[in-house]
Amino acid sequence: MKITDMQVIPVAFPDPPLRNSTGVHEPYALRTLVRLAADDGFVGWGETYGGAAAAEKLEAVRETVIGWDPFLQESLRLRIPDPRTFSPLEVACLDITGQALGQPVSTLLGGKVRDPVEFAAYLFYHFDCPQYGECLAPEGVLEQARRMVREHGFRALKLKGGVLPPDQEIETIRVMRQELGPEFRLRLDPNAIWSVETSIRVTNALEGDLEYMEDPTWGMEAMAEVNRHVNVPLSTNMCLTAFSHFPEGIRLHAVDVVLSDHHYWGGLRATQEMARICETWGLGVSMHSNSHLGVSLAAMLHAAAATPHLAYACDTHYVWIDEDILEGEKPRFQDGCMAVPEGPGLGIRVDEDRVARMAEAYRTCGFTKRGDAEYMKKYVPDWQPLRPRW
Amino acid sequence: MKITDMQVIPVAFPDPPLRNSTGVHEPYALRTLVRLAADDGFVGWGETYGGAAAAEKLEAVRETVIGWDPFLQESLRLRIPDPRTFSPLEVACLDITGQALGQPVSTLLGGKVRDPVEFAAYLFYHFDCPQYGECLAPEGVLEQARRMVREHGFRALKLKGGVLPPDQEIETIRVMRQELGPEFRLRLDPNAIWSVETSIRVTNALEGDLEYMEDPTWGMEAMAEVNRHVNVPLSTNMCLTAFSHFPEGIRLHAVDVVLSDHHYWGGLRATQEMARICETWGLGVSMHSNSHLGVSLAAMLHAAAATPHLAYACDTHYVWIDEDILEGEKPRFQDGCMAVPEGPGLGIRVDEDRVARMAEAYRTCGFTKRGDAEYMKKYVPDWQPLRPRW
Repeated sequence: MKITDMQVIPVAFPDPPLRNSTGVHEPYALRTLVRLAADDGFVGWGETYGGAAAAEKLEAVRETVIGWDPFLQESLRLRIPDPRTFSPLEVACLDITGQALGQPVSTLLGGKVRDPVEFAAYLFYHFDCPQYGECLAPEGVLEQARRMVREHGFRALKLKGGVLPPDQEIETIRVMRQELGPEFRLRLDPNAIWSVETSIRVTNALEGDLEYMEDPTWGMEAMAEVNRHVNVPLSTNMCLTAFSHFPEGIRLHAVDVVLSDHHYWGGLRATQEMARICETWGLGVSMHSNSHLGVSLAAMLHAAAATPHLAYACDTHYVWIDEDILEGEKPRFQDGCMAVPEGPGLGIRVDEDRVARMAEAYRTCGFTKRGDAEYMKKYVPDWQPLRPRW
Repeated sequence: MKITDMQVIPVAFPDPPLRNSTGVHEPYALRTLVRLAADDGFVGWGETYGGAAAAEKLEAVRETVIGWDPFLQESLRLRIPDPRTFSPLEVACLDITGQALGQPVSTLLGGKVRDPVEFAAYLFYHFDCPQYGECLAPEGVLEQARRMVREHGFRALKLKGGVLPPDQEIETIRVMRQELGPEFRLRLDPNAIWSVETSIRVTNALEGDLEYMEDPTWGMEAMAEVNRHVNVPLSTNMCLTAFSHFPEGIRLHAVDVVLSDHHYWGGLRATQEMARICETWGLGVSMHSNSHLGVSLAAMLHAAAATPHLAYACDTHYVWIDEDILEGEKPRFQDGCMAVPEGPGLGIRVDEDRVARMAEAYRTCGFTKRGDAEYMKKYVPDWQPLRPRW
């Protein structure tokens, strides 16, 4: 089998003004879709980071991809060493070969060990917007959490922190713990905006309330220093984000839980391999999420289903988008979980009209790269993305 | 798809009196074949260690295997945690599912990155036997090496050492280096029979002549101490043989090259995962071999083909057996390499009459477990398997 066509499609879709430590989400989230067609008629989809740079890197490997046998995925990986560029191509190749073989991607990865896959609610402080109003205080987050639990059944709740002064974020977690009850797993992710001292103080203040604290501070050494002074597990998607970071991260015992993400770890097989490393060294595995569409969601589901050691509920931004590129209704969470698609390949049907509309939105929205700090100046004119801020 | 039948078939086949540090090969080598049949007529083969104990462990999981969907390999792994028992079952499942999908096992593992696969000659000191005479001195090994190179084209040559006093083994390597020329990669494997001091002395004496020294001494700490005093890379299939050994082995820098072996690492996917760990920590990957038949050979070929980081020539005992269980002629090495089977699944055709003959040989040969040290008493009545011996 040969790949005969490759379309790299930058897309944009509306995003609420969700806050994080560096600024605020712009009105559009950007993603890049990859559509591969093979000579026997199968079409496979991949999805990765958005904006001009990601699309350019994919265009740069076009000559390698066209004519390639989509079954030869390991060999393609050797030719495309950038994991973020290889990842959507591997996913699209698995989608094609899964369809050709009549098997879901999870089966090509060794078969499901779980179905459905559990996800965590992703809670945000956010500025005012027509859909959700404003949420910049503990009570607003509690209300958001209640809505997420009511509508989707999540039992794990992650708060994107690093937005309010630390004591207000402590208060936010405590209010959730008190009002929601003891059975919810709570996580806080200030995106490395705190000093080591603040990280230790906040993490210890929340001992007993947090499932894990994600990236309280910046850098492997600082994370390790925090880890020496806290009992709450530390997780990361910022200081240990590539295979090459494992030796130092493990030597320092910088973290206890590593967040997988097939988009930057280099695909679905790489996700299984990073999980085996974590299993070998006694680290937990969770899953990170950026704003994403249904192709990534399907890939995340297949990866989580076929990776035994990925035992924490996965992050996802998926509930924050209104429209997806999949045909029909957006797939729904039930009891905080989502079923693994059953059809061959990724098991999804992409609506190419919707893709075309999102591609048009990309061309007209005026954003070509993510810039949360720059956009924050619309709200706070003298905004500085300081690190540490507290 | 469901597995409807499982046959566990202990077999025995003639083996020359090959020497190693603990004793001598008995007249029969033992292996266990696993034959799985699925409900749509496909038959898959696996192969593992021989003797009564291995067969019993496989029989003990029969209830788990019968009725299992052979596509659900990761889930089966969770139910059969012993890697040596799981491994032949994973291989047989891959054989079945590969046939069902019309794809070779290497493709199910992500696709070939190399074909053919290079192997190393496996040179032995050995006692007198009708076929090969006696080989207990450097000149005999040189003659054996010349025959291996002439008949099979090997460019890497491994000597099973730990048999003669160390200075005679140094002499053996030097004679080969001098007479064969600089282009051959030479390895020496004394199976951990030397003290730390002897290991350092012999390894340094052979600096420049060896591609790597395999397991000169016993235990992780001792290997690390040797490694601090030598420049020749150290390899192992004795001190770092399971995922759980990696943390200590890496912390101590006990070895530079880890020998894979899907039989004890837990299958072909596990082999890929251990190779990713080695890649991540800058260790090389080679492949270990016991006496084996054609089912294991095929599995080794598929694993090596689909594991990019497995870059050293693989060990194999295969040239030392006269008859295999595959239909027709034994597959041959060409220029020291063997092609990866192309058919679906393992790509082999097992001759069930030959299997039946080897199963009968197992029942009548009088050996039910490997005992090189005990058998050595036929040659040296007061033999003691000392460690260290020198």
